[in-house]
Amino acid sequence: MALSDDQKNQIAAQRESSAQTLRAVSPGMEERLYTAHEVLDHGFVRVIDYMGDDSAIVQAARVSYGEGTKHVSNDEGLIRYLMRHWHSTPFEMCEIKLHVKLPVFVARQWIRHRTANVNEYSARYSILDREFYIPAPEHVAAQSSVNNQGRGQLLEGEEAARVLEILKADSTRTYDNYEAMISDEGQQGLARELARMNLPTNIYTQWYWKVDLHNLFHFLRLRADSHAQYEIRVYAEEMCRIVADWVPLAYGAFEDYRLGGATLSARALDCVKKMLAGEDVTQEKSGMSKGEWREFRALID
Amino acid sequence: MALSDDQKNQIAAQRESSAQTLRAVSPGMEERLYTAHEVLDHGFVRVIDYMGDDSAIVQAARVSYGEGTKHVSNDEGLIRYLMRHWHSTPFEMCEIKLHVKLPVFVARQWIRHRTANVNEYSARYSILDREFYIPAPEHVAAQSSVNNQGRGQLLEGEEAARVLEILKADSTRTYDNYEAMISDEGQQGLARELARMNLPTNIYTQWYWKVDLHNLFHFLRLRADSHAQYEIRVYAEEMCRIVADWVPLAYGAFEDYRLGGATLSARALDCVKKMLAGEDVTQEKSGMSKGEWREFRALID
Amino acid sequence: MALSDDQKNQIAAQRESSAQTLRAVSPGMEERLYTAHEVLDHGFVRVIDYMGDDSAIVQAARVSYGEGTKHVSNDEGLIRYLMRHWHSTPFEMCEIKLHVKLPVFVARQWIRHRTANVNEYSARYSILDREFYIPAPEHVAAQSSVNNQGRGQLLEGEEAARVLEILKADSTRTYDNYEAMISDEGQQGLARELARMNLPTNIYTQWYWKVDLHNLFHFLRLRADSHAQYEIRVYAEEMCRIVADWVPLAYGAFEDYRLGGATLSARALDCVKKMLAGEDVTQEKSGMSKGEWREFRALID
Amino acid sequence: MALSDDQKNQIAAQRESSAQTLRAVSPGMEERLYTAHEVLDHGFVRVIDYMGDDSAIVQAARVSYGEGTKHVSNDEGLIRYLMRHWHSTPFEMCEIKLHVKLPVFVARQWIRHRTANVNEYSARYSILDREFYIPAPEHVAAQSSVNNQGRGQLLEGEEAARVLEILKADSTRTYDNYEAMISDEGQQGLARELARMNLPTNIYTQWYWKVDLHNLFHFLRLRADSHAQYEIRVYAEEMCRIVADWVPLAYGAFEDYRLGGATLSARALDCVKKMLAGEDVTQEKSGMSKGEWREFRALID
Repeated sequence: MALSDDQKNQIAAQRESSAQTLRAVSPGMEERLYTAHEVLDHGFVRVIDYMGDDSAIVQAARVSYGEGTKHVSNDEGLIRYLMRHWHSTPFEMCEIKLHVKLPVFVARQWIRHRTANVNEYSARYSILDREFYIPAPEHVAAQSSVNNQGRGQLLEGEEAARVLEILKADSTRTYDNYEAMISDEGQQGLARELARMNLPTNIYTQWYWKVDLHNLFHFLRLRADSHAQYEIRVYAEEMCRIVADWVPLAYGAFEDYRLGGATLSARALDCVKKMLAGEDVTQEKSGMSKGEWREFRALID
Repeated sequence: MALSDDQKNQIAAQRESSAQTLRAVSPGMEERLYTAHEVLDHGFVRVIDYMGDDSAIVQAARVSYGEGTKHVSNDEGLIRYLMRHWHSTPFEMCEIKLHVKLPVFVARQWIRHRTANVNEYSARYSILDREFYIPAPEHVAAQSSVNNQGRGQLLEGEEAARVLEILKADSTRTYDNYEAMISDEGQQGLARELARMNLPTNIYTQWYWKVDLHNLFHFLRLRADSHAQYEIRVYAEEMCRIVADWVPLAYGAFEDYRLGGATLSARALDCVKKMLAGEDVTQEKSGMSKGEWREFRALID
Repeated sequence: MALSDDQKNQIAAQRESSAQTLRAVSPGMEERLYTAHEVLDHGFVRVIDYMGDDSAIVQAARVSYGEGTKHVSNDEGLIRYLMRHWHSTPFEMCEIKLHVKLPVFVARQWIRHRTANVNEYSARYSILDREFYIPAPEHVAAQSSVNNQGRGQLLEGEEAARVLEILKADSTRTYDNYEAMISDEGQQGLARELARMNLPTNIYTQWYWKVDLHNLFHFLRLRADSHAQYEIRVYAEEMCRIVADWVPLAYGAFEDYRLGGATLSARALDCVKKMLAGEDVTQEKSGMSKGEWREFRALID
Repeated sequence: MALSDDQKNQIAAQRESSAQTLRAVSPGMEERLYTAHEVLDHGFVRVIDYMGDDSAIVQAARVSYGEGTKHVSNDEGLIRYLMRHWHSTPFEMCEIKLHVKLPVFVARQWIRHRTANVNEYSARYSILDREFYIPAPEHVAAQSSVNNQGRGQLLEGEEAARVLEILKADSTRTYDNYEAMISDEGQQGLARELARMNLPTNIYTQWYWKVDLHNLFHFLRLRADSHAQYEIRVYAEEMCRIVADWVPLAYGAFEDYRLGGATLSARALDCVKKMLAGEDVTQEKSGMSKGEWREFRALID
């Protein structure tokens, strides 16, 4: 369970205190504010605050392009135009602040996206909770034999059980030892900043993460992708659902042009043209490597 | 006059449509939202949106430092502690979006602060208005003889009048020519992206500018400083008043530690200690250059 | 002429003082170092320093991906793989520092790319030179009737002559007045920080601009594009030639995947598949707007 | 030992292949290039590349400030002036690329500095080595009783021995289990991206880290500070020695104004003035909290 009763009560309290504002309000986000959307076995994503909505994107674009945007008849058309032509600044006018609870090894990937603001729970100051990510059996998979960074087939029964047993036992033992080291009962008690290093990276941490919509889309394009590691992808997918409620027009354009779209190289475009003209194109003639050709065929077949 | 009747009506309309929100609300900002605060002869600053308040800073700090912050008894003490110890991330949890109208030469300085989001009015798409910054007579000053980048004494009567005459005449003529070049009456009409280059940098532009509180404080420390050029300083000062209403505790700490504070070098600290011990300290003995010594004495005398 | 005799002598001197280094050296860049490549009527781009080469990209990738990259047999294949899969960090390991002289209205577009380091000539401290961009007659074009931000047909004889006359006359007059205002002969002399605002944005400025290769590619993709304004595009094109000499493998991949490539939306990919299957696809059935359909057909026809 | 024989041979080879360059060369850095400077029990810092030297800072400043800098007679004076007045852009003109091997819990602190380029060893692709940070007995300390995030007294004999025993045993066991899980002998073998999460954060990782001098100074000010955790501070201190060899003038200014300097608040400055005037100042009268007053007294006593 991701949430204690205390936390549930706190969220209920936050959702009860409403106020008047003159700012742009997104009804879809008001529905979601503060609520914890559970991810993995102990994690969650919750929206703490947001700024702007689809109209804020349009408004900023119209400041920039002035009367030049008048020929685009409606908000959806304008937003699709901006997305298609890589006009990033209007999307930067929206901002979201999330509270995320996630395993440390996921946090390590996530933080590589630098254009965001972060306040993480500090294990120098405070004691970490005994909460570890243990994958569900249907996600315990072998190293892929075709992709050096991915997973392949599921582990079969006995091996999967062995792995889960190890993960649980090591989590328990290292946490027991963490507690034993920091305890000041009958001893001085090791400094937290040292004791924490005994904990494996499937332990959960949490942070406030604040990012603008343009950079969030960039994050989601990489992390909601099928090649992303499952454990970060489920966070990205949950965030996709949140963004769809927040800025439905922008999310629709993102889905069409980024998530569902693909970039073709000059060589690939040339092949498409030839194929459309009825020419027979082969990998050898294409100028592409075998791997690239395979990716290209997967796109258009 | 900074605002047309159209704009005033639009602002009045924006201030009338209120809605319920579960987000943090800053009463001081709700008072200010959309209203144009006039700066210079045709410029303004208006708040379009904001995220967070003093409590959001405290909330983020308590996530980071957990129980470690409990010994700081109240919000003001915690915010002052964060500011004093250069903990920047909690301040990044607040965000503001401004609509600013400003002369191009001011915009050129302003944009050097890179950690912000900007949508500027585009003179490639749209036609600039005939609005130029002409300084009030009490700001028409001579080159400083002591400071290579600053202003010295006010220009005296006739010279000041001559300067103002030149600025007005050149603004008028270049704008007349701008209009003549882009006009398509009886001619093709020059492309806007070319015609705009005939306009001097005292013409006004406008943009949406969005920034987090930490980076805004950095901007204000440099631009509300007495060494900043007057024409950008008046914008910074207006923004200081806005921020004081938005996050009064954070602004108070900023005023004490940044705007009113000063950094002493190791050499300067050493001199202070010696002086407090009754020792006679001179520039020669201090290890400081003459200029540095002058600045040091100005701080402590 | 972009360069004075003084500057030419200085460059010759810089090119004569060579030293030993253990760092990665790019022969193509050593050829170019310090030399001014002329752009527009008074502008230039010159390489002041660089860090890394194609091997540095490969080296960083191999640190990240470890043995996982061994299956990619050679440097070119690996670099193409990185570019194709949007792995940006290895490209960030190369850095370039340029000295650029450019008109202010070009500088205003350029600075919008925030992920770079900039030191610009300050007209608060120093006096600007009398150098203005006056377009060659073959670039004096009318506002486009199909594209709100672009140029259309060339202006015809008399109108073009009139435009050039205006640009020259206003440049001369505003600069004469600038000089008159700052002069301290027989008067106090206006502060430079004020006088500069009388100058139009076709005056030249200069700066040191330092950027990593990933962000430079992003800049070049947008600014070497045919939709970019001619006056910034010529700088981007000059920089493309420089980068091609610096990191030939990376530049080749950039040309194929970015400059010559294109992003297809999910809808567009779907159309391509249908067309390859012999289906008749129309704009109406595609789900695309007219403008989008036109762009799509231009890509594949 | 931080380095294998293979690595030592590779470094020796790198140090033997020298070439001519026209770029700025820093003799102090050429001495250091590629050599591994050992930190902690298995870590190191080595310089892979650098751009610029003290002269490059001066050169950039003189572009910005033009003739305005002529009154500052020499390079050292100018660099000290820039540092004192927070002119950050000239320092951004220098860049350094380091190869660092460090424990994961240190890497997690380090990466919070976002304005740098990073390529980290990927445990999704590759297998981590069996190398763990085990503190030397003289660094095994108790939680501080006065500072919530720091260490206090050393642990006494038996407790320290117990802690070291736990850290070693848990490192060994979790790594044994890591190997057992990924092994494909007689089983499928768990995906690396999953198995890695069983490893505690005292395991070593490595990365290429590239940063400009301004942001490096910011990092060093925070991490070479006495309040920084010992395990990151030793890296910062090693980097301080490197920077001192690279840009001796800039480092000298940094040491005086940042490392050895201190920021006084308006209230603190006011107290200093009163004390210098012979007035008796107390915490109560100062407007400072008790903690703040204690810090203030520590600075000036």
